[in-house]
Amino acid sequence: MTDNENTPVSVVGLGLMGTALARAFLKAGHPTTVWNRTAAKANALVAEGARLAPTIGDALGPGGVTILCLTDYSAVRELLGDAGLEGTKLVNLTSGDSAQARETAAWAEKRGARYVDGAIMAIPSAIGTADAVILLSGPRPDFEIGALGTISYLGEDPGLASLYDVAGLTMMWSVLNAWLHGTAMLKTAGIDAATYAPFAQQIAVGVAGWLPGYAEQVDKDSFPAEVSALETDARAMAHMVEESEALGVNAELPKLIKAMADRAIAAGHGGEQYPVLIREFERAGE
Amino acid sequence: MTDNENTPVSVVGLGLMGTALARAFLKAGHPTTVWNRTAAKANALVAEGARLAPTIGDALGPGGVTILCLTDYSAVRELLGDAGLEGTKLVNLTSGDSAQARETAAWAEKRGARYVDGAIMAIPSAIGTADAVILLSGPRPDFEIGALGTISYLGEDPGLASLYDVAGLTMMWSVLNAWLHGTAMLKTAGIDAATYAPFAQQIAVGVAGWLPGYAEQVDKDSFPAEVSALETDARAMAHMVEESEALGVNAELPKLIKAMADRAIAAGHGGEQYPVLIREFERAGE
Repeated sequence: MTDNENTPVSVVGLGLMGTALARAFLKAGHPTTVWNRTAAKANALVAEGARLAPTIGDALGPGGVTILCLTDYSAVRELLGDAGLEGTKLVNLTSGDSAQARETAAWAEKRGARYVDGAIMAIPSAIGTADAVILLSGPRPDFEIGALGTISYLGEDPGLASLYDVAGLTMMWSVLNAWLHGTAMLKTAGIDAATYAPFAQQIAVGVAGWLPGYAEQVDKDSFPAEVSALETDARAMAHMVEESEALGVNAELPKLIKAMADRAIAAGHGGEQYPVLIREFERAGE
Repeated sequence: MTDNENTPVSVVGLGLMGTALARAFLKAGHPTTVWNRTAAKANALVAEGARLAPTIGDALGPGGVTILCLTDYSAVRELLGDAGLEGTKLVNLTSGDSAQARETAAWAEKRGARYVDGAIMAIPSAIGTADAVILLSGPRPDFEIGALGTISYLGEDPGLASLYDVAGLTMMWSVLNAWLHGTAMLKTAGIDAATYAPFAQQIAVGVAGWLPGYAEQVDKDSFPAEVSALETDARAMAHMVEESEALGVNAELPKLIKAMADRAIAAGHGGEQYPVLIREFERAGE
């Protein structure tokens, strides 16, 4: 990437997110073109200095980067299907899955575009701040769109942005659910959520710090019980389920944790360490 | 707590954990008495400077603190049932649930003991380091056992140590499972676990930082959609489930996340923010 803040950019699709993207570019001084099926949606941005492209073809004009932020991938193909893509640089931030990203990349590249797929891990109001993480994958970007937030380039496979995005969402909701489960348990003892939250935070941060080390076990496909064996963990899991049930709080989360460990033990991994559960996570469940 | 390192201590129950506790006390210079049903298990500790109590009553002697680390709570009551507890200070680090902790506290206090319940969030080899977190609850400790690790006093209710312990375990396994789920997804694209781990860590740490703010919503029982509404989240959840299924990895974790959110939406909370799910976590599930 270059650090030229003045790369001309186009933003195609002016929903809440597309509008936030265009505004962040304008604020950072990029010459910014916008296009939307309903042109009136561009009025505020034009008042702020954006140029309204008369046609989608004009928005794709050479020398700049076009950011796509549409409803879904079929809207992307429908809209670009008749436009000439030769020599264009497309960054598709439309929500979709990894298969759609790979198909659309192949489709766009065949038409001569340099196509980068992306995923936005942020809400519109965070765009333009470092908190807005934008994942990109495909050919390594040769343009600078850091005005949008923290850009993270993941690799050549255009499906990666989408995969990292859903993996991150699973982590997000898992931390929130574990916290809510604990909060529900502590509330039965009259402990308020604010009192419990720093403890939950400390545990989450501590355990997150183990991941790089545990990843080595996964990559070596070798899970010696250096810290604890799965069958020892399983006793604490049984206790976690029993306590949840005794308190009358929702026990589905601890039950799922226990069920997956039990399956790994039944498969003969009781003497190994927790990350051996990658075997269970890699195959469709029950 | 005082910072007198020389409080006399007794450790009752010399399994792997009890032995680690006694050794940490010896290392820190506490006069240390030990007792075990099978006395031979004390030999190594005696060689390191521990005094072997000839009877359990002797191990409970006044002026010190007795740490209990037995198989379960019934073993605690059975062992102490005939001993005089008047004037003793007991710290019960035996694994058990909050109901057992409260019952045993009442039982011991009726017999004149000052009873503190506790939970050890560490493996034996970590005892004696700051990484070993030991949760205590009951009457505020008037003794110093910081030689064992990081002591965290939670409050008067003797059930709290046990509740925080299982809440912490739910967080621990939730972070690990979300990481394994993401690792399994990224492996389908040829990304190794070590490459993905720092990303998972960053998300977990970031989301953990939201918990104190989200806790305010729970305590106020008011969930305005400042960041995102649950029905918006639900669309991303559907996408997370579909991507997991399309990749052929285990989809049970994303399905549970989605099922709980769907129930909250069905209950009329679609326009509110995620922590409104406390309502689902507070009641027994399906």
